[in-house]
Amino acid sequence: MYWQDLTYPEIEEKIKQDPIVILPIGSTEEHGHHLPLSSDSLQAIYVAEKIAEKSNGLILPPIYYGYTELDDFKGTISIGFNTLYNLVLDILNEITDDGVKKILIISGHASSLHMGAIRYASKKIVEEKDVKIMVLSDYDIAYELRAKLVPENDSHAGIIETSRILHIREDLVKKNWIFGEGSKKKYMITKGYREIYPYGTLSSPNGATKELGEKIDEYVIEKLWEIVKENFSL
Amino acid sequence: MYWQDLTYPEIEEKIKQDPIVILPIGSTEEHGHHLPLSSDSLQAIYVAEKIAEKSNGLILPPIYYGYTELDDFKGTISIGFNTLYNLVLDILNEITDDGVKKILIISGHASSLHMGAIRYASKKIVEEKDVKIMVLSDYDIAYELRAKLVPENDSHAGIIETSRILHIREDLVKKNWIFGEGSKKKYMITKGYREIYPYGTLSSPNGATKELGEKIDEYVIEKLWEIVKENFSL
Amino acid sequence: MYWQDLTYPEIEEKIKQDPIVILPIGSTEEHGHHLPLSSDSLQAIYVAEKIAEKSNGLILPPIYYGYTELDDFKGTISIGFNTLYNLVLDILNEITDDGVKKILIISGHASSLHMGAIRYASKKIVEEKDVKIMVLSDYDIAYELRAKLVPENDSHAGIIETSRILHIREDLVKKNWIFGEGSKKKYMITKGYREIYPYGTLSSPNGATKELGEKIDEYVIEKLWEIVKENFSL
Amino acid sequence: MYWQDLTYPEIEEKIKQDPIVILPIGSTEEHGHHLPLSSDSLQAIYVAEKIAEKSNGLILPPIYYGYTELDDFKGTISIGFNTLYNLVLDILNEITDDGVKKILIISGHASSLHMGAIRYASKKIVEEKDVKIMVLSDYDIAYELRAKLVPENDSHAGIIETSRILHIREDLVKKNWIFGEGSKKKYMITKGYREIYPYGTLSSPNGATKELGEKIDEYVIEKLWEIVKENFSL
Amino acid sequence: MYWQDLTYPEIEEKIKQDPIVILPIGSTEEHGHHLPLSSDSLQAIYVAEKIAEKSNGLILPPIYYGYTELDDFKGTISIGFNTLYNLVLDILNEITDDGVKKILIISGHASSLHMGAIRYASKKIVEEKDVKIMVLSDYDIAYELRAKLVPENDSHAGIIETSRILHIREDLVKKNWIFGEGSKKKYMITKGYREIYPYGTLSSPNGATKELGEKIDEYVIEKLWEIVKENFSL
Amino acid sequence: MYWQDLTYPEIEEKIKQDPIVILPIGSTEEHGHHLPLSSDSLQAIYVAEKIAEKSNGLILPPIYYGYTELDDFKGTISIGFNTLYNLVLDILNEITDDGVKKILIISGHASSLHMGAIRYASKKIVEEKDVKIMVLSDYDIAYELRAKLVPENDSHAGIIETSRILHIREDLVKKNWIFGEGSKKKYMITKGYREIYPYGTLSSPNGATKELGEKIDEYVIEKLWEIVKENFSL
Repeated sequence: MYWQDLTYPEIEEKIKQDPIVILPIGSTEEHGHHLPLSSDSLQAIYVAEKIAEKSNGLILPPIYYGYTELDDFKGTISIGFNTLYNLVLDILNEITDDGVKKILIISGHASSLHMGAIRYASKKIVEEKDVKIMVLSDYDIAYELRAKLVPENDSHAGIIETSRILHIREDLVKKNWIFGEGSKKKYMITKGYREIYPYGTLSSPNGATKELGEKIDEYVIEKLWEIVKENFSL
Repeated sequence: MYWQDLTYPEIEEKIKQDPIVILPIGSTEEHGHHLPLSSDSLQAIYVAEKIAEKSNGLILPPIYYGYTELDDFKGTISIGFNTLYNLVLDILNEITDDGVKKILIISGHASSLHMGAIRYASKKIVEEKDVKIMVLSDYDIAYELRAKLVPENDSHAGIIETSRILHIREDLVKKNWIFGEGSKKKYMITKGYREIYPYGTLSSPNGATKELGEKIDEYVIEKLWEIVKENFSL
Repeated sequence: MYWQDLTYPEIEEKIKQDPIVILPIGSTEEHGHHLPLSSDSLQAIYVAEKIAEKSNGLILPPIYYGYTELDDFKGTISIGFNTLYNLVLDILNEITDDGVKKILIISGHASSLHMGAIRYASKKIVEEKDVKIMVLSDYDIAYELRAKLVPENDSHAGIIETSRILHIREDLVKKNWIFGEGSKKKYMITKGYREIYPYGTLSSPNGATKELGEKIDEYVIEKLWEIVKENFSL
Repeated sequence: MYWQDLTYPEIEEKIKQDPIVILPIGSTEEHGHHLPLSSDSLQAIYVAEKIAEKSNGLILPPIYYGYTELDDFKGTISIGFNTLYNLVLDILNEITDDGVKKILIISGHASSLHMGAIRYASKKIVEEKDVKIMVLSDYDIAYELRAKLVPENDSHAGIIETSRILHIREDLVKKNWIFGEGSKKKYMITKGYREIYPYGTLSSPNGATKELGEKIDEYVIEKLWEIVKENFSL
Repeated sequence: MYWQDLTYPEIEEKIKQDPIVILPIGSTEEHGHHLPLSSDSLQAIYVAEKIAEKSNGLILPPIYYGYTELDDFKGTISIGFNTLYNLVLDILNEITDDGVKKILIISGHASSLHMGAIRYASKKIVEEKDVKIMVLSDYDIAYELRAKLVPENDSHAGIIETSRILHIREDLVKKNWIFGEGSKKKYMITKGYREIYPYGTLSSPNGATKELGEKIDEYVIEKLWEIVKENFSL
Repeated sequence: MYWQDLTYPEIEEKIKQDPIVILPIGSTEEHGHHLPLSSDSLQAIYVAEKIAEKSNGLILPPIYYGYTELDDFKGTISIGFNTLYNLVLDILNEITDDGVKKILIISGHASSLHMGAIRYASKKIVEEKDVKIMVLSDYDIAYELRAKLVPENDSHAGIIETSRILHIREDLVKKNWIFGEGSKKKYMITKGYREIYPYGTLSSPNGATKELGEKIDEYVIEKLWEIVKENFSL
């Protein structure tokens, strides 16, 4: 299932079967006082594994670094737009040169410019080569549950995210569930977010449970698998 | 021990103790018919963990992609010099902005231009900020054993590397130990290496054992730990 | 009101009064069979003029080119992410060097990566200089009327946009109101959009009127003016 | 006549007739105490319109920003060489992809590096695609009148330029005609020009009249039209 | 006299005397059937040596490569605008870091974009550091003799240039003096110049003599030395 | 023998004979108190001339600037990795466009990242065009004599280098032979080397003689010529 566990002749054989190759992209980003910096990476990898199982696909080594504006919180590591763009572009170029035709990029981090860099690189490949690339954040699907399972304003490090990490890696969730109302001025460009969201949470995690997390993850996997099957004509 | 397992307030506390922060860099590169594409990553992470234990340090999320000229072998994923340079530069900038003062970069992959990109980025940081950065490949130390424990020409996917992977992840080593004499013309720039080294091994793995791997890894860790203590005045 | 109509000593005087300086950014992009390629530019400039009037501000020469993925439609001119980023960055650097402290960037074009380039450049300036920058698309406000004045799925070249152009430049609106259901596969990266949206409209313009356009424009201006006053403490 | 006033199907039809497509490039640059910052843009657009009329061509949305060394005068907005180069390159790439074969770039601003960026981008296109591109500043022609209609040293914001703006937009010309002898050291690279040309005029505007401006503009148009006809075999 | 002939402690001593440091820039460019590809380099170095003698200055190792549009003639080696820009920028940064305060850049090649790259790099240094940089082509002075000593249209590989090379390196001048009227269309961007100037000469060399070359070189040196003295207050 | 001494029709003829074209690359770098800054350039050019003679090849104008970390010593001029990469790339592109098929790049400077930039540019050309490129430092061969003719640790500005410069340009060697034991910490990235190697010598020059230099140079030329003949099938 993992690209990197194979030898090169094994990869060569495997590529001939036209597998879906999945690139999980996370981030190293603050997620409040209770969730680990790897939260986005954990979720992307979890989803990637489930889809790889279902599709008999391959998972590329994950990218643990993304672009995020929350980098004035200690521990957050944001890489530049062009760094991320070139990293994804180089990887896509190499695997499509090797014959890969079906690519799924799952990002656990969903911020707009981060996704933009990934899509921009993917678009360049699609324009130059005859391959199919699907790009999404699992949050594109998970947030369909807002106003259904969770409050409409559920967001970064809130109920959905806390529940999912409880489900995936409960041991990494701290008891320290703090949330404070932010006061970001609409449309203003900010130097940093630490003053705006003092605890790094954009909505309250209260109400999160492991069971809810499992339910959400199941929803995400099921929905995503349907779309994958249709998009890649499986 | 893992940066990404912590929350941002935990990282903030931890950084105040002035820990050595370790960035493991691997590669996704062919290693013959018997070793996995992740061989360099596995070794870098293994060494990083041992040094982190000894120094009570932190390990950053690994970079699984490096620059390699062996990219005409299927499965190998090489990223550009500037991609790697910018990735390392961005990470170093972020963690030093957060207050990290002691950094150790361990690359399991040792090719010259790959190490050059890492050192070039590190040098830029050292010139601009008051931090200490140590950069090496664990092979800088492991190859001290050439002509002692192993033949002088032991190289890529040969006895040392095979032994070490047997020690670290025996389950990923295949039985298929093939080696064929290469015929690279001296100093000539080549389009690819597949024609030169038909099996992707630059020296024979025959003679590799798990026990030898353990011995080598112990040597590397011990030697490296001595240097780390001296360089960072521990 | 227009930066470019003044002489340099006049600008120098004007800047001393600490005006809001507005940069309108449009696009040169297909808008179906009935709207001109300048639709986004027209709307951005219209809104810029209204806010400049209210705030006694200055309007910079507009940028008529943006990033858009609809560039396989003839006439559409898309510029690269980095081209747009550098253009906005250079302009912001020059005017802030001249002493401008309050900047409002209004983009008539709202696509994610286009806005991302503008915000990314603005963020760099805000991190380096003590200035305030507000960035939005007037569609961030106009689309608040979806599910109220117009159908929820109203989109590119649909009722809102057609109504607004009828209001602003009726002479440029053609009678040819065609819409065809698109069939974009979810999350798939596409080479072009011509096959997906055969008429270049992403929702039907039927129902658009000049009166509706006036109403929408009034709403946008009023809402925006409120936010501007608060953000810049007028 | 204006590219941006058309819909995409109209552009598609129009391009089939193989029109000359004109890109007017101006600047936002100080022009003394009497001329507006838009002086170069006004002249480029004026000339573009006349040639578009004569040739039944299309005018692209203008670029109001260029590279200029006069950027220490307030109000002047200079963009970098590479910013301008990439902007022109992207535009040329898009319109030639759409089938445009005959391109005329008219820059109202004539400084050497500014023209260099435009020509360098155009050369790249001409080397890659089978299209014709003509690049000039209208001042390449207007300055043929030096030593004839005006003094030999007539220059930036002097008699020719003031006369032309009087002809094109008399309402924007202020009464404040100041000129002071500059003292630039030959061949020395300067940080700025404000100390060298205290009033932003490089030659005296005295003697400028609207009638002279009309005469000059007629000369420019006539001469240019002759060259255009010959170059594009009309 | 030559920077590179000294040891580093000698340079250190020499810089304390605040010398003029001269960077000669040439080109590797066709100069007809009779002049060597090094013609521009030879002239720049000759002039640099004379001024270094008079000023007791230092000459940096020459740059033999420049930007030229004549690169479809065999043997011509043109480097990109940004390559030249960065090369000059890096050199200027290093020597000004070492304490050099007075810099004279003499380019034997005079094409507009080539000079633009050199000036653009120099301007960046002058804006950031307190140093004086003078940039010119010796042809800026030599061409003052047009319409006096030689025909007004004397140009590339014509009488002045042939005479000067006869004076500087007679042994490199071939007997093959061919010139053919070119037919470049005004303002058109061309793919190459070989079809336009079939012999690589832009004006006839007939009339060139060694004596004339000596006279011209004396004029250039004398004039340049006057300007250097004034500009650097010697 | 020198590319630049020829006219373009002569180069055209010469290229038809499929010559080896040699690019000598040096550096402007401190070499202790006794050797000139041009030491690397002198050696590269010397070797280039000998091989050009033997092969009836052509020598391109030398590049006197390279990447070096010793740039805190006065007089040293280091250019960036990308500057060097682009310079070499542009030159290689131009000469291969002219029909050159066999290229030998000899660098007198041997530092790892410097060689990396040259090889990286060469690799790009080899991947795109059907040409042969051989890249080495003459020190790759000269250092084969370590532990034979000279001590094993002989290094920068030591016995081999001093001997060779005595042989090539005795007049440029100063009497001031100083060496001081350096104390570089293993694997640590340093801001500069002046504190580490106080005299700029990395090993002692004592024992150097002109006769030894001749012997070494003969060895280098002979060995290199053998390899060249084999690599280019002469």
